[in-house]
Parts: sequence; structure tokens; C-alpha cells
Amino acid sequence: MRVMGIDPGLTRCGVGVVEGRPGAPGTMIAVDVVRTDPEAPLADRLLALDDGLRALLEAHRPEAVAVERVFSQHNVASVIGTAQASGIALLAGARLGLPTATYTPSEVKNAVCGNGTADKHQVTAMVTRILRLKEAPKPADAADALAIAVCHLWRGGVKARIAQAAAAQAAAVAAAKERTR
Amino acid sequence: MRVMGIDPGLTRCGVGVVEGRPGAPGTMIAVDVVRTDPEAPLADRLLALDDGLRALLEAHRPEAVAVERVFSQHNVASVIGTAQASGIALLAGARLGLPTATYTPSEVKNAVCGNGTADKHQVTAMVTRILRLKEAPKPADAADALAIAVCHLWRGGVKARIAQAAAAQAAAVAAAKERTR
Repeated sequence: MRVMGIDPGLTRCGVGVVEGRPGAPGTMIAVDVVRTDPEAPLADRLLALDDGLRALLEAHRPEAVAVERVFSQHNVASVIGTAQASGIALLAGARLGLPTATYTPSEVKNAVCGNGTADKHQVTAMVTRILRLKEAPKPADAADALAIAVCHLWRGGVKARIAQAAAAQAAAVAAAKERTR
Repeated sequence: MRVMGIDPGLTRCGVGVVEGRPGAPGTMIAVDVVRTDPEAPLADRLLALDDGLRALLEAHRPEAVAVERVFSQHNVASVIGTAQASGIALLAGARLGLPTATYTPSEVKNAVCGNGTADKHQVTAMVTRILRLKEAPKPADAADALAIAVCHLWRGGVKARIAQAAAAQAAAVAAAKERTR
């Protein structure tokens, strides 16, 4: 399964594409940052971000999109731009009919570091190890996007297995009911 | 000039289309609310909002889009959804190549009521009067969207006249320079 992780931001939006499956080390397909000009009008920046994300979705064709959830606890001055960028990211995935998911920063840290309060260096170190990279991913601020993709692969896999098991059980119950008719 | 005013919201997004020119009473072309299901996944809601706004842009073909600016002073719990909705609204306008503008709530109130701290009833009353409507616009929570459109027509007109005057002056200066060569 191929997942695009997105660390939303209006000035710098991290994008990491990882292929893999739950419990196994994944493979990094791409890592990039979509940048928009802080001096440009807001609508132009949102359009540039949307264009950039669409181009990356087109180039790497992920099967799912995972976006870091914006928190009101973030710096209030920057939360509005981050929220707008996350909205554009989720819309870009949904527009292509892809499943989307959001994860809190602590869910992402917990998934890759086993610790919801891990710092940026730990996240980068673990992403480098999990994806068996020779060196830390560059640009450095895109490491979080890879961590979000890994988080979705691992957690999404668990969720998918639970959903699969529930569906199998529901089917078994339905079949049993059918037999007793 | 035809302007679409948008009062961004994820659950209810007000849309008002007004035709007019600076200083004159305008004509209401349309007033509507795009609603999304609060129980639906976020990406689906953003997609539904984008679809709804695109349909209204297509139906009413405004020449400009004006969106109320999101403030961090707003309720912090709702500011993220409002910011995401405003991002979708600005993107929808920019995607069509339309000029976009944002106005603070007090700029809008000041434009239609002459008072930046006017309450909701005053805004509705003034919008009803300015647009010479027989009764207050319905749905009621779309009155703000009409006020945003009126604000842009009046203020945008002033800005356009200043820009026009500046361009005329620059042209006159250039012509004078040309003559003295």
C-alpha cells in the first residue's frame, strides 16, 4: 500500500510518500516540500499549494492520504494558515476519491518513536531507521510528512484488519441467520 | 459588477451574490447557504463545500469573490473549521481566475452600518434596506454573506477608482515626459 503523508503548512507543506504494510519497514518513494510565497495574496498561495499537491498526487499515485491534524493549542497566529493548508490537502485527496485520515502530532510520534512527546530529532532518526535511508531525509522539515505516512501505514493497517475482522464476523453471523431460516 | 460574498463555515457557509456599483444601492442576485453534514468525515465535508461553492459560482458567474477574514480571536474550537472553509472558498474563486478579497467582520459592519461593532440585527436591517428587499433575506444567516458582497462592491469600487486615478496620473506623467524629449 502506498501512502502520502502531508505535514500541512502554507509557507512550507511537507509531503512524504511511503510504500509498505503494517509491521514491516516501509520504502520511501518520495519526499518533497511544496512552498508558497509568503508575500503573495492568500488566494494565490492556496492555489499554488493545491497545484503543487495535485502534481505530487499525480506523480506518485498514492492509495491513501494522511494529514497531520491541526490543533488549536498550536501557535494561534499560525493556526489559521495551517488549518487552511490542511483543508486544501484533505480536499486534494478527497477530490481524487482517495481515503483520507488525520492524525494528531502525538499519534504520529507514538507510532514511529513509541513516545507521544518525542522531539523532532527522534522523529527524524526513527524515520531514517524505519525507511532504511542512508542519511536523514532532505529537506529536513519533510521528515514529519514521512512519519505521518508511516503512522498511517501501521495504524491504518491495524484499523483495516479490525474492519476486515468485523466484516468477516458480520458475514458469518448473516450466513448463520440465513442457515437457520 | 457582480460580487459573490462568502461567510465561511464548515457546517453552514453563507453565500450572497450582489450586483451593483460603488455608492449605489445594489441588487440581490442570489442568497444561499451551503451545508455539510457535521457527522461526515472532514475530507468529505470539505469536498461537499467545494462542490457546493463551485455550483453557485457556475450558476451566478460573479466577477469577484469576497470572503470574511478568519480571526484568531474567534472561538478557538471553531476557528479551525472556519479557516478550512475560508481556504476552500478562496481556492474556489482563485481556481476560476477571479479576483478575491478578504474583509474583517468590522470592515464589513463598518461598510454597511457605518459602525464596526454593529450587531447582527443591524447588519440584517441595513442589508435589507441597501438591497431594497421586501423582507429580511432568508436563510437569515446568509445576510452576512450579502453584507460582505456589498462591502466589496463599495470598498472595492473605491480602491478601483484610486487605482484608476493612479494609473491615469502615471500615464499623464509618461506622456509629459515623452513630449519633453
